[in-house]
Amino acid sequence: MSKFWSDFVVGLEPYVPGEQPANINLTKLNTNENPYPPSPAVMQAMENAVNDDLRLYPPSNADQLKQTLADYFQLTPEQVFVGNGSDEVLAHVFNGLFRQAQPILYPDISYSFYPVYCGLYDIEFSQIPLADDYSLDLEGYRRANGGIIFPNPNAPTGRLLGLDAIEALLQDNRDSVVVVDEAYIDFAEAGSSAVSLIDQYDNLLVVQTMSKSRSLAGMRIGYAMGSKILIEGLERIKNSFNSYPLGHVQLAAAIASFNDPDYFATMRERVISSREWIVEQLKVLGFDVLPSAANFVLARHSDENGLALTQSLRDKNIIIRHFNKPRLSQFLRITVGTPEQNQQLIDALGEIIG
Amino acid sequence: MSKFWSDFVVGLEPYVPGEQPANINLTKLNTNENPYPPSPAVMQAMENAVNDDLRLYPPSNADQLKQTLADYFQLTPEQVFVGNGSDEVLAHVFNGLFRQAQPILYPDISYSFYPVYCGLYDIEFSQIPLADDYSLDLEGYRRANGGIIFPNPNAPTGRLLGLDAIEALLQDNRDSVVVVDEAYIDFAEAGSSAVSLIDQYDNLLVVQTMSKSRSLAGMRIGYAMGSKILIEGLERIKNSFNSYPLGHVQLAAAIASFNDPDYFATMRERVISSREWIVEQLKVLGFDVLPSAANFVLARHSDENGLALTQSLRDKNIIIRHFNKPRLSQFLRITVGTPEQNQQLIDALGEIIG
Repeated sequence: MSKFWSDFVVGLEPYVPGEQPANINLTKLNTNENPYPPSPAVMQAMENAVNDDLRLYPPSNADQLKQTLADYFQLTPEQVFVGNGSDEVLAHVFNGLFRQAQPILYPDISYSFYPVYCGLYDIEFSQIPLADDYSLDLEGYRRANGGIIFPNPNAPTGRLLGLDAIEALLQDNRDSVVVVDEAYIDFAEAGSSAVSLIDQYDNLLVVQTMSKSRSLAGMRIGYAMGSKILIEGLERIKNSFNSYPLGHVQLAAAIASFNDPDYFATMRERVISSREWIVEQLKVLGFDVLPSAANFVLARHSDENGLALTQSLRDKNIIIRHFNKPRLSQFLRITVGTPEQNQQLIDALGEIIG
Repeated sequence: MSKFWSDFVVGLEPYVPGEQPANINLTKLNTNENPYPPSPAVMQAMENAVNDDLRLYPPSNADQLKQTLADYFQLTPEQVFVGNGSDEVLAHVFNGLFRQAQPILYPDISYSFYPVYCGLYDIEFSQIPLADDYSLDLEGYRRANGGIIFPNPNAPTGRLLGLDAIEALLQDNRDSVVVVDEAYIDFAEAGSSAVSLIDQYDNLLVVQTMSKSRSLAGMRIGYAMGSKILIEGLERIKNSFNSYPLGHVQLAAAIASFNDPDYFATMRERVISSREWIVEQLKVLGFDVLPSAANFVLARHSDENGLALTQSLRDKNIIIRHFNKPRLSQFLRITVGTPEQNQQLIDALGEIIG
């Protein structure tokens, strides 16, 4: 620590992202990236944005992107917030909406950045244990709170909470903000997003990212959608932090992606179909696989140690993610890859388990 | 306000950036952008970065960019921090280094985002008045403080503080962090940067941006340089906020810019030479012009009202910046443009003043 640091800095426990290995010969199934590249139309739009106008500041309110998102999701631009990846959006949510008198609530097994944000903004929290089947335990959220957040589908379980249950949560918590973190929602059945509830519930905020289903993890684009009053709160934070979180090339990429629904639909179908194939194959190998609505699966084998399996795969140049945490240490989290990568994975596991 | 907002949100007074007009027929001399485009080598590097790897997360520690900056500034990578524009870097500085028992100090006339950050992070501050000639009043900083920050050259005055004075400030404030915000330093005489003092003063942090001298305002790239312990504090904040503030295309642009010193030197010389031309012409028109080491000038006319002049220029499709604040309302802040734009400006002012 240092006398030069603000007092709280020494107590921070920063987020640890999944490894981005320099070894390009690895089969990389560890950070839930899309196995397919961005749409050719997105690439073209980005190339077009590489021009002399880069000397100019981007539009600070990202009006054109907000209009594009509003049109796509049948909202108004005042119901849309954009940021430098959904991690930045979430940081502003914790700061601007979750610093309340009561602790916020989130599942004990969920995105491991949530407790980090709480540390950064001095927010009290209670972790609500998932049920034995790793589904969200709705009863646990029936208590006074300063806000609720959960990934849906949950990460790293992959389990989806239905819209009826989300609506019940919203009704039970009219005085606090309920954030549905939909980083993986596009890999669930169509109609699973809570966006359709925004006009009915002013306490609902839906956060999404272009990193997964839109193959743009390398571009850092996230967004949130909710009632005007929630978006206004986030805008006040954003405009007190960084006027221009998204540059010209990011804006061009994002707009082009939403304007190319066919490519999106095709790649989404491919990933979902591969996921179902992986689930079947893992079951054949004796794995217990949680039902997944995401682009990854969480699986465990009753006879094999999770960490040992992860290391054996790494020895075969396949990298997946293992969480050395209570209730998770027996599991492997495997990102859906291309059919070739998925076949490699299953073959390697077959050899290891023997 | 809203019951859904964190309490402090209603009291925020967000930063108001200079206008980014949609009208492309305007001569835009209001936000200190570079009149010249980024280097062709930078454009090429960005186009090369628009590839299938955009589906992957960028390297979260930006190792290659940090090494490039370290080599350029004769530092080590552990002395370098990077972020999504220098505004994001400054936000992390205020949060991670400036939340101290004593108030921080900065000039009464300086970057108007500083009080906004103080509002965001609940930081007490004292504004130290500039001297009558709008130079930094060093005596004012001889008092207990939780940190010091000032732009150098200062904005919007353009005045440069010499290295001797900066070193005296560093020596007088061994127990607090002194941040030199060098957004415009590349337009000052070579050797003006405080970077050369970093190895001697562990309380020094130098913040720079690629938005001005490197023509990349549209890409959002900033960085800070200082002792390892200061950089470690910033990294702890950054890794508790957003693991990946810079995407692949930003990283490629930044690295390519520092690897093309000839283009940089040529464009820098052009801007400096145009600035000197503008200063001479403004003086001929009867303006009092503060000595500028930046890519803008601050000038006032004893017979003309600052706001009225700004509006008259706007009527002639020339947009400059006016600050309706104490000690500034009589001034025009004019960004250096291309020679053609600068001629338009001088011609227009000549017509207005008659």
